[in-house]
This record gives sequence, structure tokens and C-alpha cells, in this order.
Amino acid sequence: MNVGVAGLGLIGGSLALALKARHRVTGFDTDPTTRDAALAAGLDVVGALEALLPADAVIVATPMEAVVPTLEALAPRAGGAVLLDVASVRAPVEAFAATAPVGCRIVGLHPMAGRSGSGFAAASAELLELRPFLVVPTARADTAAMAVAGALARDAGGEVTVCSAAQHDRIVAVLSALPLAFASALALTGAETVDGNLAAFSGPGFSDSTRLALTSPDLGGRMLLANGQNVRAALDRARAILDEVDRAIAAGDASALDAILERAAHVRRGLR
Amino acid sequence: MNVGVAGLGLIGGSLALALKARHRVTGFDTDPTTRDAALAAGLDVVGALEALLPADAVIVATPMEAVVPTLEALAPRAGGAVLLDVASVRAPVEAFAATAPVGCRIVGLHPMAGRSGSGFAAASAELLELRPFLVVPTARADTAAMAVAGALARDAGGEVTVCSAAQHDRIVAVLSALPLAFASALALTGAETVDGNLAAFSGPGFSDSTRLALTSPDLGGRMLLANGQNVRAALDRARAILDEVDRAIAAGDASALDAILERAAHVRRGLR
Repeated sequence: MNVGVAGLGLIGGSLALALKARHRVTGFDTDPTTRDAALAAGLDVVGALEALLPADAVIVATPMEAVVPTLEALAPRAGGAVLLDVASVRAPVEAFAATAPVGCRIVGLHPMAGRSGSGFAAASAELLELRPFLVVPTARADTAAMAVAGALARDAGGEVTVCSAAQHDRIVAVLSALPLAFASALALTGAETVDGNLAAFSGPGFSDSTRLALTSPDLGGRMLLANGQNVRAALDRARAILDEVDRAIAAGDASALDAILERAAHVRRGLR
Repeated sequence: MNVGVAGLGLIGGSLALALKARHRVTGFDTDPTTRDAALAAGLDVVGALEALLPADAVIVATPMEAVVPTLEALAPRAGGAVLLDVASVRAPVEAFAATAPVGCRIVGLHPMAGRSGSGFAAASAELLELRPFLVVPTARADTAAMAVAGALARDAGGEVTVCSAAQHDRIVAVLSALPLAFASALALTGAETVDGNLAAFSGPGFSDSTRLALTSPDLGGRMLLANGQNVRAALDRARAILDEVDRAIAAGDASALDAILERAAHVRRGLR
């Protein structure tokens, strides 16, 4: 397929690098330095968003706030191109798609992947290998467009999971936004307790537990705010479990504590 | 030095393997299979705790509930041997040391290290490399005994941090017990939300954030209960930060959220 990628940061860059083995990939980024880096890495790059068209598919991988404006710019001239986007909150795209020109084809394609670095410099095809790609239909999706999304997800090395926008946002609130909030609270509690000397006391467990606090505050803030209702529900539920832990400690109830920890260990053993 | 290690699990086994390059190390474990595995890995092994003596130092690395009984058994016959122990909650050892025979030498030596596996099979010298070793005096510590603890920590590849028992327990509540409670709450909230299919949705961020939920419930429960007061204070503080996050989301206050996330990212950037 002819595939355009708009936005060549960590995720867009990784998608472009992963897909170019099997597709004719063209990339665009508003930042000239990023365009140069992508060119140097062997990608075809164009100097304007519109030059990604015509194409079989365009993947919008801009920062979250630019996703809907970019879809808006592409939609009127997309022809039959399937417009995909990696936005980690689906509600705004869902709302846009519902009012987009009839004939548009819009599908969410959200890889559950990340690392501490950001930008094209941190991008790599390996980032996406075996990661869940959440494929999310919109009011402007058809079966063939869903199939294009699934094929590109697999060709990028991912594993396809289809879900509705509402389900996506509820799940991502728990699997991405909540861990970010927890990592941030842990990091701040650690810093308050140890007073400037955290690295002299902390081991790999604390480092892993707080890694998501390295998420850029800009992206993190959007993940929390744009999906606020789901995130608040997730916080509520998680705090209820912490309350259970607290009550078990206060009561010296080893078996209640053991039950919680055993259930959690069982869940975690099911993940990589 | 002649160094005995009582308990050849993940931490004791790793200490024995790391120290044998520079010291004459002898190990003991109550489990014959573990003793055989340690022998096969090239360690000198004895069949009884008391046979670790005489020695310059004995490191007690048993499960937490056996640490004080093991110190009790060793203390009357220790001669000048420095008794070290890796207990991750210091208060019980502190209490024991205060009433131990005069002339005993007891120092805490707690490496902030771990991994998902357990037992001698998961032990390795690398586990301890560049990890903080918290060296904690007791009422039965002297300068020379503290120096022995520091030398063994460094010879095992670690970096020495000295702190009081009270400081240790307050810090470990935040850096070990709190992340365990958070990881468990995250794993359980994830499982409730996704309903049996968590691996199809979750990426590396969720995996890292919940890794500590793999802690054995037995060890985890003890870390939470034996240090209950400090753990409850840590939970309180962390929940207050989560409340702040929740209020900022409810108010749609992007700049309050950004301030929290930016502070947390700054703290985390100071860690490996």
C-alpha cells in the first residue's frame, strides 16, 4: 500500500520505520529537523501535509491536540484513503468523525507502546513488536477500512485488538493514565521522604514503578484531562483498593492482605 | 574475610556469589535442595547454621520472620563475628539487638535489589551491582563492625548508604512497600476493567508499573504489616497527591496538573 505518516515522533516515526519493509511509506512532520532526521534514516519525506495524498492510508501521529485538526485538513481531499490516527483518547476523534464528510473513512489505530525517550531520535521498529494495537471504529469506518487498519497493525509487528471508542477510553484510563498518576504520586512521595537523595536509597523496583513519571507533562496532562471522567472513575476504584490495603494493615489482618496480594500477583503473572 | 551466609535465596545467594571473588564464603540453607544447588554453583556449603562459625562476619538472609530467631541462635556463640542481616524492616532487629548479649556485634545490611524470580535459582552477583546497600547500626554496633558492613557492601558491588533504623523503615515504606501496594491496586483495577483479557490491551508501561505485584504475597504481606505505621503514613501521603490530581482533573485545571507532572518528572529524571 501507499501509506502516509503525518507526525514523525516516537510513535509515528516507529510506525514509518516498521511499515517501510512492506509498504511504500511517505512521512511528513511540521518540524524541518525531524524531516531531515527521517530522510537520513531512509524514509521518503514530503514538505507539506497535503503531499501525503493520494494514498491508500494516512496515519495521523501528531501530538494529541493536533490530531483532529490534521484529520480535518485531510478529510476533504482524502479520496478513498483510510485516515488512521494514534490518539490515546478516542472521544474527540469519535465526535469529529460523526460530523465528517460522508465518504470519509476514519479508524483509530492506537499502539500500546512507549519508552522514556521521545521524538524521531527515540523511534524504532522494535518499539512496536508484539504490542497490542487497539483498532477503534468510528461513525466513518467500513469493513474494508477496518481491514486496512488491522493489516497495517500486523505489518508493523503488532497484535490487533478491536474495541469501541467508549471501551478504549475506559481501558486506557486504567492502563495508561492511572499508572501515570500513580507513578507521579510515588515519585513525589519518595522525594518528600528522602529529601534530595533518592538515588542513594532506591532500587530497581522503585525505578520501574515510577518510570511513567517520565512521560512528558504535556502528553500526560492531555491523557488525564481529555479522558477526565474515565480517569476519575479509575482513580476512585484504585483508591478503594488502597483503602482495603490500609484497613488490613490497621487491623493487622495478614490473611486479608495476603488475599489482595495473591489476587494481584495472579493478575500480573498473566502479563509479560 | 571468612564470611558466612545463612539463607541462600535470591538475596543471600546473590551475596554469596558476589562475595566469593574476594572472600572465603561459606553458605547454609535449611533446604537441602538449595544447599545442593549452591554447592553445584561452586559455593562452600555447611549442613548446620552453627557451622558458619567461627567467622569474621555472618550475613543472615533468611525470610524476614526467621531473621531474629537466626540472630538469636548465632549471638551467644558468635565470638567476635559481626552479625549482619538483610531484613527489609529494621524495627524487630533493632529491638532484639537492644537486649542481645553485650559484646555482640549486630549491623543491618539491606541491599535495595530485587527481581521477579526468587530462590537460589534466580540469584546472581549482577543483581547487586551498583545497588544502594543500606547499612543500619543497632545498639550492638561499633565502628569496626560498621566498617565490615561497608566493606562487604562495596565488595558485593553495591554503594553504601548509612541510615538509622527509624530512617530506614520510614524510607523503605515509601520506596518498597508503597510501590507494592500501588502495583497491586493497579493490577486489580486493570483486571476488573478489562475482564480477563488484560494482555490483549496492556503495553510495557502497565507491565513496569505492576511488576512489584509479582512479589511473593508472603514477603509482601510482611513488608506491609511489620512496618505498618510507616506504610500507612506513606499511603496517606501518596493518596493526598492522588487527591490533588483528581481535583485538578475535576476542575479542568491543566496548569495545576502540569505542575504536579513536571515535579514528578523532575524527581524521576534523577533516578536510573
